[in-house]
Amino acid sequence: MAEKHLFIGLDVGGTSVKMGLFDKGGELLGKGSVPTPPLIDADGYHAVTDGIAALLAAASESADNVNGIGLAIPCPVPADGVIRMQANIQINAPGLADALERACPAAAVKFENDANAAAMGELWAGSGKDYQSLVFVTLGTGVGGGVVVDGHVVGGVVGAGGEIGHLCMNSDEERTCGCGGKGHLEQYASATGIVASYKAECEQRGLEPVELEGPSDSRSVFAAASAGDEAAWAAIDTMCDYLGRALAIIACVVDPQAFVLGGGTSNSSNLFMERLLASYRRYAFAVSADTPIEIASLGNDAGIYGAAFVALQAAEDAA
Amino acid sequence: MAEKHLFIGLDVGGTSVKMGLFDKGGELLGKGSVPTPPLIDADGYHAVTDGIAALLAAASESADNVNGIGLAIPCPVPADGVIRMQANIQINAPGLADALERACPAAAVKFENDANAAAMGELWAGSGKDYQSLVFVTLGTGVGGGVVVDGHVVGGVVGAGGEIGHLCMNSDEERTCGCGGKGHLEQYASATGIVASYKAECEQRGLEPVELEGPSDSRSVFAAASAGDEAAWAAIDTMCDYLGRALAIIACVVDPQAFVLGGGTSNSSNLFMERLLASYRRYAFAVSADTPIEIASLGNDAGIYGAAFVALQAAEDAA
Repeated sequence: MAEKHLFIGLDVGGTSVKMGLFDKGGELLGKGSVPTPPLIDADGYHAVTDGIAALLAAASESADNVNGIGLAIPCPVPADGVIRMQANIQINAPGLADALERACPAAAVKFENDANAAAMGELWAGSGKDYQSLVFVTLGTGVGGGVVVDGHVVGGVVGAGGEIGHLCMNSDEERTCGCGGKGHLEQYASATGIVASYKAECEQRGLEPVELEGPSDSRSVFAAASAGDEAAWAAIDTMCDYLGRALAIIACVVDPQAFVLGGGTSNSSNLFMERLLASYRRYAFAVSADTPIEIASLGNDAGIYGAAFVALQAAEDAA
Repeated sequence: MAEKHLFIGLDVGGTSVKMGLFDKGGELLGKGSVPTPPLIDADGYHAVTDGIAALLAAASESADNVNGIGLAIPCPVPADGVIRMQANIQINAPGLADALERACPAAAVKFENDANAAAMGELWAGSGKDYQSLVFVTLGTGVGGGVVVDGHVVGGVVGAGGEIGHLCMNSDEERTCGCGGKGHLEQYASATGIVASYKAECEQRGLEPVELEGPSDSRSVFAAASAGDEAAWAAIDTMCDYLGRALAIIACVVDPQAFVLGGGTSNSSNLFMERLLASYRRYAFAVSADTPIEIASLGNDAGIYGAAFVALQAAEDAA
C-alpha cells in the first residue's frame, strides 16, 4: 500500500482555531474548527488535538499519515522560531508543538504568521497558483501582508517580513497608528482607516456621515460611495493613493509576478480597482507598471491552506 | 590531482570591464581590466576573452578549471534572462555568453544587475559575510541596491528587485527623477540629490554655496558640513530623513539581518551615520528598530566578487 502524505493547517484566531486536512496536492479533504482556548496548558492543547482527531475521523484517515502540521498565528514568527510578541492570543509554542507531535508522531510542526500563511495559501491553491513570487496584501480591520519569493515566504529575521501595514508612507501624519508609529499605510488603507478618512471628509464638507456599525465598517462607506456619496469617494481615493504608492514601492524592493489582495475590503474591489491601478501605475518604476493586481480567491480558508503548505515545505526540507 | 574550481567575475562598466579570478572560498587570485568595447560582435567579445586569458596566465591557471563566469551589468536582468533595457553600454548577451563559454568550456555564464552583484559580493566576502539576508544600498551618483534573502539575490520578474533608488517617497515632489518619476529616493539621497538639496538650502538662506566640481560633487558638501556650513547640514538631514524612512519601509517588506551601505557617499558615513540611525529608528516598525546599518567593505571590487559568486551559485544549482 502506498504511503499517504497528509498535512493539517490550523488557523489560530482570537475566537476559533480553524482546521483543514489536505493531501500533498493541495486538495482539501476536510474542515473543522474549535473555540480558541488559552494555548498554554494540557487542557488547551487537548482541545486542539481532539479537534484534529475528529477531523481525521470524519475523513477516515489515520494520525500516522499526517506528515506536517502548520499553525497560522496572529503574531510575528522570527527566524529563530521563538515567539516573543503576542497580541490577541495566549500561546506556548513549544508546549503546543510537543502536544501536536505526540498526537501525530510522523508530523513536523511549523508556525507561521497568519498573513504570511494566507499568502502561501493563495500561492498553493488560490489566485497565486500560477506564480512563484507574489505579494499578498490583506485589507481588513488592519492591513497585513506576505511576501513570497521563489515559492517561499520571506518571514524575516524578527518576523517583520511582509508587515505591509506599517510602511511609513507619510512622515507628516500627526495621528498615531495602532502600533505607535505615524503615517503608516494601515492608517489610510485599512477598514478603520477608510472609516476615519470618510468621517474627516464629511466633517470638512459639513455633511452628516451615513450610519456606521462601528469604527471599521468600511462596507457602509463603500455602499455610500455606490449611492454617490462624494465624501465616501474621497476616502476611497485616499486609500487608493496610499495603497497604489505602497505597492509601487514594494515592486522596487522585491518585484513580484503579481500582487494579490485579500481581506474584507477586497470584496469591494469592483468599486476601487480601477482607481487603485491608476494610482499604482502613476507611482510605479516604469518597468514594473504592468505588474497585475489580483483578488485573492480562498477567502477565510487562505490561512488553513497556507499553514498546511508551509508544513509541507518544512517536511520536504527536512527529508 | 584534485579538480580545481575557479570562478571569474566581470564588472562591466561604461569605461572598463573589471575582472577578478576567485577560488570557491571567495579568495581573490588575480585582478585585471580592459577598456569596455561595444559588446556586440566578435571584436568586442575577443577583447574580453583576451583579458580573461591574460588574467588566467598571470595566475598560472587553466581555462579548463573555470566553472563559472559572472557578469555584473548596469541594467535590469529579468527572470527570463532576456536583457531589454540598456543605458550606458552596448551588449549582446547571448553572443557574449557564447564567446565566454567557448573560451572557458567548463564554465556556466550568468548575468546579474551590477548593484545586485555588489550586494552578493558583500555577502560572500565583505561586510555581509556573517549574514544570510541583507539589503545593500549603493549611494553614488544615483542610488541603487540589492536585496538578499536566504543567501540569494532577489532579482525580480522584470529585474526591478532592489531598485531602491526609485522608491516613491514623496508624492508631492514636483521635480523629476532621472527615470521620469517624481519624489524618488534617488532625488534626495544620491550625490546629485545632496548637491541639489544643498543649493536649494543655500538659495533659501541667501548664502553662496561652496565651489562644487559638477552636479554630483557631494564630497564638497560633506566637506562644507565639516566646516560648519548650515546649508550643507540641512542637505545631509534631508538625505538622512528620506534614506532612514526608506530603510524602515524596506525592513517592513523583507526584514533583513542588516543594511549595508556602499558607493562614494558611504565614505562620509562618519558625518551622517548618527543622523541616519536616528531617522531609521524614528520611522521603523518597533521590532525592526535595532536592525544594524553597516558600511560596505569591498569598495569598487564588490562587483567582481559578486559576479563570481552568482556564477558559483549558478554552477552549484546546475550540478
